[in-house]
Amino acid sequence: MRRALELAARGRGRVHPNPMVGAVVVKGGRVIAEGWHERFGGPHAEAMAIGRLKKIPAGAKLYVTLEPCGHTGKKTPPCAGLILKSGIRNVVVAARDPNPLVNGRGIRRLRRAGVKVTEGVLEREARELNRDFEYWVRHRRPYVTAKIAQSLDGRLIARPGERWVTGRDARRLAHRMRAASDAILVGVKTVIRDNPLLSVRLPGTKLAPLKVVLDSRLRTPPRARIFGKASPGPVLLAVTSKAPRAARRRFGGRAEVLEVRQKGGRVDLAALLEELAGRGVVHVLIEGGAEVMSDALSRGLVQEVCFFIAPRLIGGEAPRVHFLKETLNVKDPRIISAGKDWLVRGRL
Amino acid sequence: MRRALELAARGRGRVHPNPMVGAVVVKGGRVIAEGWHERFGGPHAEAMAIGRLKKIPAGAKLYVTLEPCGHTGKKTPPCAGLILKSGIRNVVVAARDPNPLVNGRGIRRLRRAGVKVTEGVLEREARELNRDFEYWVRHRRPYVTAKIAQSLDGRLIARPGERWVTGRDARRLAHRMRAASDAILVGVKTVIRDNPLLSVRLPGTKLAPLKVVLDSRLRTPPRARIFGKASPGPVLLAVTSKAPRAARRRFGGRAEVLEVRQKGGRVDLAALLEELAGRGVVHVLIEGGAEVMSDALSRGLVQEVCFFIAPRLIGGEAPRVHFLKETLNVKDPRIISAGKDWLVRGRL
Repeated sequence: MRRALELAARGRGRVHPNPMVGAVVVKGGRVIAEGWHERFGGPHAEAMAIGRLKKIPAGAKLYVTLEPCGHTGKKTPPCAGLILKSGIRNVVVAARDPNPLVNGRGIRRLRRAGVKVTEGVLEREARELNRDFEYWVRHRRPYVTAKIAQSLDGRLIARPGERWVTGRDARRLAHRMRAASDAILVGVKTVIRDNPLLSVRLPGTKLAPLKVVLDSRLRTPPRARIFGKASPGPVLLAVTSKAPRAARRRFGGRAEVLEVRQKGGRVDLAALLEELAGRGVVHVLIEGGAEVMSDALSRGLVQEVCFFIAPRLIGGEAPRVHFLKETLNVKDPRIISAGKDWLVRGRL
Repeated sequence: MRRALELAARGRGRVHPNPMVGAVVVKGGRVIAEGWHERFGGPHAEAMAIGRLKKIPAGAKLYVTLEPCGHTGKKTPPCAGLILKSGIRNVVVAARDPNPLVNGRGIRRLRRAGVKVTEGVLEREARELNRDFEYWVRHRRPYVTAKIAQSLDGRLIARPGERWVTGRDARRLAHRMRAASDAILVGVKTVIRDNPLLSVRLPGTKLAPLKVVLDSRLRTPPRARIFGKASPGPVLLAVTSKAPRAARRRFGGRAEVLEVRQKGGRVDLAALLEELAGRGVVHVLIEGGAEVMSDALSRGLVQEVCFFIAPRLIGGEAPRVHFLKETLNVKDPRIISAGKDWLVRGRL
């Protein structure tokens, strides 16, 4: 099952709104075939593993990280049926499908047909792997990670003239977070002031998450770097009814301008997230700035926080998270080294 | 020498304004006597180690963490003379005396008398051990550690009604820091708002560092807990000329009221630190609040920062460090686990 989990993780950033899944076929203690869900629309892990074998030897056992689907999906035939047809009579499953409408159905179908199904092997790890998917499927809202790069004294940006608070290793980790996300969300002030690319810059990856700008009055500069060739992902500008019509036309084919319900004169973040969830956005990474972060945190829309902490004191009037109605405790906080910086990660 | 360093550390919090020193006598690869400087006014490490032996066997070697003193001290005879009288002909020294007036003198005296002296063994560790002493002796100012307990988002205090930002393990470490300090310094607002004891609460220790309150206009409540029985150390109230005479009389025997030069209408922290240094205060621990911390940090009066970080977000208008003229980078930052919190420690 550990191997199957490793395989599953290869789909990171590519399979949403499906979960990551891995599968191995074992015979006599030896792995004879492997598969994983490579990308959305591609074959499921079980189909890939079984498909690698011309003939399934008697006594072969299938390990799969998620309950095989029992229903006829839109893109692929149900895996439970495929397993039955393959002749495999022994299946080990890590976790059930978190979708309450599906949960247990695939397993029941296998059992009814006389297949021996063992459940719950490395279940915790398997659920952890698809925690964002599980959240999305249950709440119909994206799983939101807030990424904050700050100094030891909680300042969110460097001094004028300095581009980064944190160092190179921390930024590489941040790019991996982008790669695992379906959308990257920032406020318009961040676009105006920092003009970031919001692209995934990692060797060997071509992932291009959706770039979402919270921009009530549509002030995003049409020449911002998010529209450039160096930033291949699509752009969504979330505006309110206050955004001038003329300005909307300016973005023609370069961005979708989406009018969202307002709350206190600004884009209602909860409404926007629901809209994104409906479009298959499972995991959103909020990268700032301070206002968006404060809004998201204080409204309870954030599931996970990632604080990159640089060992320096900045002081002054630099932006920071504000206006929390109550203290938020970070659960299971972990700290890892990121070059000269640290990353504190945990759930809310 | 490692053993000698271990012994030296037993003097922590007790020997200032002397350095911590440890010594061992070795014969045939075996330790035959140990000594350390136990407390200010007590015998030096070399004297204690040598004094344990009725007779020094031929070929015995003395390991000492700091250059033996060559001058006649006020409290004890010079150790170099004692070593010569003992007949020890082989001395290993970790570090020289950092006092520029003494540096190398003790070693020269031993060498001139024909003793073989090896220098620089574990020198880095030995200097690290007495870093505060070295700073004090060179600059005639105390070594200042700033201790800051904060949330992940850099808020210095908990919400109203909560007493602590950090947990119990972090507080225990904080008490160890107090135990290693000669004085604990806070602003009057901290005394008024938090009414802390500022005592060392560790099992088995009776250390009672000086408690210093920065209190320009002498607003410290005469019934504050720092004056109580549960807080045995002496109290120094640092005031400016604006402090009313009548108020000064109120503290009678319970505290010294010291008038210090002012700067911008407040106690000039640099002037106060110089006064403390002259009184033999080698190591000062600043515990807050935000104003004192900001003043000390922005004027470059802090040598070491200790950030206790709680994995929580507080937000709001809680106090924080402000008004730094430039970014301060923390050198050699280290992070250690303190229960559910972390401690980030490094030099400025």
